[in-house]
Amino acid sequence: MDKPVLDAYGDILSGNCYKVKWVLHRLSIAHRWHHVDIVAGETHSEAFRRLNPNAKVPLIVLPSGECLWESNAIIHYLAEGSELIPTNAFSRAQVLQWQCFEQYSHEPYIAVARYINKFLNLPKARLEEFESKQQGGHKALAIMHEHLKDKDYFVDNRLTLADISLFAYTHVADEGGFDLGQYPAILAWIERIENDPKHLPMRET
Amino acid sequence: MDKPVLDAYGDILSGNCYKVKWVLHRLSIAHRWHHVDIVAGETHSEAFRRLNPNAKVPLIVLPSGECLWESNAIIHYLAEGSELIPTNAFSRAQVLQWQCFEQYSHEPYIAVARYINKFLNLPKARLEEFESKQQGGHKALAIMHEHLKDKDYFVDNRLTLADISLFAYTHVADEGGFDLGQYPAILAWIERIENDPKHLPMRET
Repeated sequence: MDKPVLDAYGDILSGNCYKVKWVLHRLSIAHRWHHVDIVAGETHSEAFRRLNPNAKVPLIVLPSGECLWESNAIIHYLAEGSELIPTNAFSRAQVLQWQCFEQYSHEPYIAVARYINKFLNLPKARLEEFESKQQGGHKALAIMHEHLKDKDYFVDNRLTLADISLFAYTHVADEGGFDLGQYPAILAWIERIENDPKHLPMRET
Repeated sequence: MDKPVLDAYGDILSGNCYKVKWVLHRLSIAHRWHHVDIVAGETHSEAFRRLNPNAKVPLIVLPSGECLWESNAIIHYLAEGSELIPTNAFSRAQVLQWQCFEQYSHEPYIAVARYINKFLNLPKARLEEFESKQQGGHKALAIMHEHLKDKDYFVDNRLTLADISLFAYTHVADEGGFDLGQYPAILAWIERIENDPKHLPMRET
């Protein structure tokens, strides 16, 4: 009998799902990946809502049937005990700090602008919303740029979940209308991560 | 010489700051509390931005001078090793899941509606924004209500950081225009938490 593996649900082109796929890949965790079509509304089906009442991907289902949702919670669970989470309590908290920053001050601007532009083809009805996201997105990028000016990575100067969470939507921020050319420290950090031989690019499979 | 203690910055009437004050109180952690006037713009001063470039409270500064921001990261740091964080890896991840849900799907609706109403006195210029927050807030409350129908607390059926993070803005949701009367499981959970002898109410000091 096959060893029971976990099931992961998502769309690799969604930054939040990409974080999960990346950690699964990097830590060689056996899994089945189930593609979910967000734009077609698949997360809103009754069957999906039984797995995640918040009707969002990513989602993982353990062999026991237990479900876990929210990208940053999932990758903490998957990476527990690995080199992606520092052992020092303050550094761990700093990883969480940057992940909370990502979810509150970065993703709602950069990911939403990208979604409206890339996945919905910037419909006229949402142009104002798209434009309203630019200022908040640049504020988040400026904070990241300042932090990275004298550092290679966000916490402890090595790759952690903080980088994975922030990289996910930052490296495709141009698809949300954000020009990263004005943030050279961010561009250098992106190049550093992409040059890692264990890196998993965000790519349709 | 006095033992060096940590400095905490915030406004107890802000739910995000209240989470921090509550954990400090509950775990009897020595600290100095510095009141910050958010509406007066004190988080935007140059001195404050040196502590938190994202110009937000809460914030803690360790005796070493190191800073930590983002409410959920701070309370994880403070509560590490305490009964407020489960030791089981999956339960820990579930705590994080509910905290991420709070920051992305709950706080941006309920806390922002409350801020516009309670702290800014619902100015005409922000009435439309206030009203636009109602639907998302009720969606989050309905998910909480469903989860609590057959449980006393969010994770492992005992008080954890998940409850503290969700309680902060939920118990004052009426100040954001949300009637909790339609969510009896939430009202019972609020009462359960408030009846705990170690509970710290949100109150101006």
